[in-house]
Amino acid sequence: MDRREFTAALAASSLTNLFATAAHAQPAPPARPRVGMLIHSDMIMLDLTGPLTVFNIMQAGVHLIAKTMQPVMTDVGLPVAPTESFETSPRAFDVLFVPGGLKGTVAAMNDRETVDFVRSAGETARFVTSVCTGSLLLGAAGLLRGYQATSHWYVRDLLPLMGGIVRSDRVVEDRNRLTGGGVTAGIDFGLTIASRLAGEETAKRIQLLIEYDPKPPFDAGSPERAGPALTNDILRRRKEAIAQAESAAKAAGASLKI
Amino acid sequence: MDRREFTAALAASSLTNLFATAAHAQPAPPARPRVGMLIHSDMIMLDLTGPLTVFNIMQAGVHLIAKTMQPVMTDVGLPVAPTESFETSPRAFDVLFVPGGLKGTVAAMNDRETVDFVRSAGETARFVTSVCTGSLLLGAAGLLRGYQATSHWYVRDLLPLMGGIVRSDRVVEDRNRLTGGGVTAGIDFGLTIASRLAGEETAKRIQLLIEYDPKPPFDAGSPERAGPALTNDILRRRKEAIAQAESAAKAAGASLKI
Repeated sequence: MDRREFTAALAASSLTNLFATAAHAQPAPPARPRVGMLIHSDMIMLDLTGPLTVFNIMQAGVHLIAKTMQPVMTDVGLPVAPTESFETSPRAFDVLFVPGGLKGTVAAMNDRETVDFVRSAGETARFVTSVCTGSLLLGAAGLLRGYQATSHWYVRDLLPLMGGIVRSDRVVEDRNRLTGGGVTAGIDFGLTIASRLAGEETAKRIQLLIEYDPKPPFDAGSPERAGPALTNDILRRRKEAIAQAESAAKAAGASLKI
Repeated sequence: MDRREFTAALAASSLTNLFATAAHAQPAPPARPRVGMLIHSDMIMLDLTGPLTVFNIMQAGVHLIAKTMQPVMTDVGLPVAPTESFETSPRAFDVLFVPGGLKGTVAAMNDRETVDFVRSAGETARFVTSVCTGSLLLGAAGLLRGYQATSHWYVRDLLPLMGGIVRSDRVVEDRNRLTGGGVTAGIDFGLTIASRLAGEETAKRIQLLIEYDPKPPFDAGSPERAGPALTNDILRRRKEAIAQAESAAKAAGASLKI
């Protein structure tokens, strides 16, 4: 189930299938959607890997875009090399995607060049998307004004500071904005955007290939389910990082005149 | 929510919490479990990233082990650099983990040095584990003889060729063997092994941090749910790779005298 195998397996029939599905269910998809995925230091590798796996199976043209061509370091200690810098990156994407990682998100919100890139790419993208704290950066770029959106549960209430309307769903879709909740929501997001790009049949085939039939061994994946003790424990531990995110969101809101 | 943030956030209280949890619920966990994760070319990045994210939050000592120190290429086009080769790797792990990726798994099953490493590391590991097609490699190393296990749905029926007893659960635990289903089962597996190493409370805290409250947009994550048309479509596309896996499993079974 590696890239080349998928490519080989899908090559014969995928385009036919994409169009066959699209004809009766969805707007005609691009044959190979062009996806721009922002990457930055301190991003969560799983935020990227979930959606990237889906885009890869779709044979999307994926650009990994960073401020410079220097590899960025992720939470798990694995570096990721960009394929484009802000300077060389195309702007017209079918999907602009922003991963999370609170410290890295805050640094990006406070970085003019990064915010400018996200704004300019977001203004022309067919879909403007994020997972986890990445939506705070979309917000800082003014891309969530008047849009319903979500984020990691511990920062989603900051979105209104930048004009967003908070929802707590796992994946929130409002016109062409698709935002996912924390980290693992990237898989639910990935399948959702796959259906928008290529139809439900393709999304379901990808779901079956990656065997996404989740059965969490515990029931603690949201504050409501985990209960106040665990939730408050995490909020207490992340207090400083969340306060920094709040400052960045307020500053962004002020510069957006919200 | 990057590595350093987690480290900082957890440092003050995690060890205390681990032991506090263990005292009334689980056997005493190692303070920093030593985890050996095999990596190989054509592995599925998401197979690795799910469990690695969990181990990283636990502040486990993670070794990424390959045949040589050459970076390996993953399905999504991102290379991963090993931290150890078979030659330099320690053998005594709390957890030995093997990811999947059918083409890479088959190559590993047919490679004597890889099979020998997995066997020798598996014989001494406290937990012998895998996700996706990785269990075929455990089987080829003789580590699943008489054990219940699972694998990616499209190859799990090959396990008996190497002495395994197939189950179709998402995560199968039989004594110290823990095997997960395809790709995304790595997250369910990760939380399960976290609870075995550090107690349920720690596993639930990790689940809340990575917001694992899955809500797949479609219901097609298993052959039973996806139905025969999608299932047969994938089986037809993967026919050759599955046939190669069957040959490798038969050869391994013969050399294990099964």
